[in-house]
Amino acid sequence: MQDDPIVLNISGSGSSSVNIVDDHDLQDSALETEYFSELGQTSAGIVELPGFRTQSGHLFDKIQLSFLTIGTLSPEKDNAVLVCHALSGNAHVAGTDPDTGRPGWWDFHVGPGKTVDTDRFFVICANVIGGCNGSLGPSSINPATGRRYGMSFPPITIRDMVTAQVQLLDYLGIQKVFAALGGSMGGMQALSLAVDYPDRLHACIPLATSMAHSAMQIAFNEVGRQAIVTDPNWKSGDYYESSRPEHGLAVARMVGHVTYLSEYAMRLKFGRKQQRPAVPEDIFPMFFTVESYLQHQGESFVKRFDPNSYLIITKALDMFDLLDGRHASEVFRNVKSRFLIVSFESDWLYSPAQSRELVRALKRSNMAVTYCNLDTPYGHDSFLIKNPEFSRIVRNFLYAEYRNLREARDETPALAHS
Amino acid sequence: MQDDPIVLNISGSGSSSVNIVDDHDLQDSALETEYFSELGQTSAGIVELPGFRTQSGHLFDKIQLSFLTIGTLSPEKDNAVLVCHALSGNAHVAGTDPDTGRPGWWDFHVGPGKTVDTDRFFVICANVIGGCNGSLGPSSINPATGRRYGMSFPPITIRDMVTAQVQLLDYLGIQKVFAALGGSMGGMQALSLAVDYPDRLHACIPLATSMAHSAMQIAFNEVGRQAIVTDPNWKSGDYYESSRPEHGLAVARMVGHVTYLSEYAMRLKFGRKQQRPAVPEDIFPMFFTVESYLQHQGESFVKRFDPNSYLIITKALDMFDLLDGRHASEVFRNVKSRFLIVSFESDWLYSPAQSRELVRALKRSNMAVTYCNLDTPYGHDSFLIKNPEFSRIVRNFLYAEYRNLREARDETPALAHS
Repeated sequence: MQDDPIVLNISGSGSSSVNIVDDHDLQDSALETEYFSELGQTSAGIVELPGFRTQSGHLFDKIQLSFLTIGTLSPEKDNAVLVCHALSGNAHVAGTDPDTGRPGWWDFHVGPGKTVDTDRFFVICANVIGGCNGSLGPSSINPATGRRYGMSFPPITIRDMVTAQVQLLDYLGIQKVFAALGGSMGGMQALSLAVDYPDRLHACIPLATSMAHSAMQIAFNEVGRQAIVTDPNWKSGDYYESSRPEHGLAVARMVGHVTYLSEYAMRLKFGRKQQRPAVPEDIFPMFFTVESYLQHQGESFVKRFDPNSYLIITKALDMFDLLDGRHASEVFRNVKSRFLIVSFESDWLYSPAQSRELVRALKRSNMAVTYCNLDTPYGHDSFLIKNPEFSRIVRNFLYAEYRNLREARDETPALAHS
Repeated sequence: MQDDPIVLNISGSGSSSVNIVDDHDLQDSALETEYFSELGQTSAGIVELPGFRTQSGHLFDKIQLSFLTIGTLSPEKDNAVLVCHALSGNAHVAGTDPDTGRPGWWDFHVGPGKTVDTDRFFVICANVIGGCNGSLGPSSINPATGRRYGMSFPPITIRDMVTAQVQLLDYLGIQKVFAALGGSMGGMQALSLAVDYPDRLHACIPLATSMAHSAMQIAFNEVGRQAIVTDPNWKSGDYYESSRPEHGLAVARMVGHVTYLSEYAMRLKFGRKQQRPAVPEDIFPMFFTVESYLQHQGESFVKRFDPNSYLIITKALDMFDLLDGRHASEVFRNVKSRFLIVSFESDWLYSPAQSRELVRALKRSNMAVTYCNLDTPYGHDSFLIKNPEFSRIVRNFLYAEYRNLREARDETPALAHS
């Protein structure tokens, strides 16, 4: 047993290793220039799948999942890469959405020759259960009542999200996923797949994530939830026939955005710049650019997200506890995945310390782990933005693991092809 | 000119140097045991003072200030210590409030033999203008209309707050304050007094503060302001005859509280502890202690604070810019104060880096500066809680400076007593 994880501390030269122009993600940013996805148009579809009992005990007879696939599944069905999205993501991981004209949330990293190379891998991305972008969630119609679930939708766990995606894998005829990866909540799903479905995953790549939320992470989520549930329009979640609690949701999103950026990134992007000279309607004589930015983020988000989903998904994040008081060796006993863990030095929400804790737990359980802490200055958002160093590391890991997987199989043809 | 500040990096042994039991401030905490202030009962009074023109151009004919004094002014009137409060403070700095039974917000540090020794010093603390605890603010009646100001109250700056307190000093017949001190916004006021009224201050002690808010500090304040102004009860600030925007204010306070604590303090206080087993009314099967804590803080705060004051005071914080593009040497040219700057290692809101920036600016301007960075683990709240190391440093500085001041005067009796 080796207690020291393989650590690569990649100290890029900060501003030179990351292009300042690209310090934005693709989710709600106003794209300053027209953005062309090399994948062209992609559209997520919705599939009905067998249901299951949630961890809280609710039985769904069937579930709907919105999902998108990109690339070609190999004849051996061994090149599937499951990309798991974070809190505010959806199935539309890459390519241009024909309805909105916007690129997928991870278009920087999913495409031909990119971090996840769609020329080699069959990429699958599904909207999580509990979400609001096509998958079954609180804004779906409850078949038992003919009305939207609202907060009668059961609490969802990260494991429930993964169980739903395993149903999708069955539907696609994929027994074993080559790799699962994702940042933040996506990383939790990748970990949960490795632990709860050990035979179905070869390589696990959790990015900027943790085994369990700290009190501070719970606290920031709770502020957002309180903003929503104290909005008079929330009405215990029963707002679908009237005004939505948009103010609360916008405030929740603003809190989130402050925590996703590093102080450095904020200083660089905004500093104390003023958005414009004050106008007579302004309450105050200074209107800072960072205030304008946050207001914009709040307004964009409410157009595309359901407040009840925000409650359910943030609580899933807070409840997630991979070890849950058990010894790591017990939790990882049957795990067969090989791991690449990536954290970002300036990420103070999902700190490198949390990733290192994960790495230690895996190493103590004799798992194969590579760990990279990247010295990017953009905080938690680092996994969403362009970053050549990050791309190289994840791409190389995927290539090498896939090559090893194929070679290992080719070396035992009798067993593999008999 | 000496460019290296006198730096004392006090590395206490963490848990041993700070009593874990005392890791709370006195503002809204539920006091677990009865708290006895050695000062007995103290009550703030309200005085009417000459008005002035605010920096935004509004002329007040007169102003009301709530203030409290503790101790005895020396015959030479040379022992006055002005304590400046932070965002949510008030005049009631120490002693027991006969109405609420609660101790003053800095009772740990103001009293006989304490950090600010009321046996030696004459302590003055006034509620800031723009506030809501007795001083003129948006909830005051506008004499011109007979109605409450609401948001017709002018924007207030830190300098306006200080100007109001200088009027109070005139009223008390105090030409020169021996020392001004305060944490966070209190530190900004102390700095502003030193710079804008150089002849009226001998020693300046800014604690856990900065010369100007960073984009991140503005961002957290803006989230709070958005929570208030998007609360339907806010009504452009004209809510005094109806329901107040309490939900928005509570959320604003919750955001604040998360930023006042360190991750370490939160882990220690809350971790992933659950407040109680879930009850059927709960939306979710887990109710974390940190969620309960935040909800309690929000609820306590709305009982004692005016939402419009919260807007005005947070904006004063954001607008404050001590240098404002000027060279430090120009800003501090006429300053006569001697400085003690204190920061706290775990304070990520007003980081030690910001204090060091202040120290550098002062040193470059040939000011007399002592700087201490204290290795306390309680985040920005560190200046509000019990801390023997902190007390010793500030108390010793005050004693030494006062002795030097008296000795210097006694050495020139002909001039001083002629």
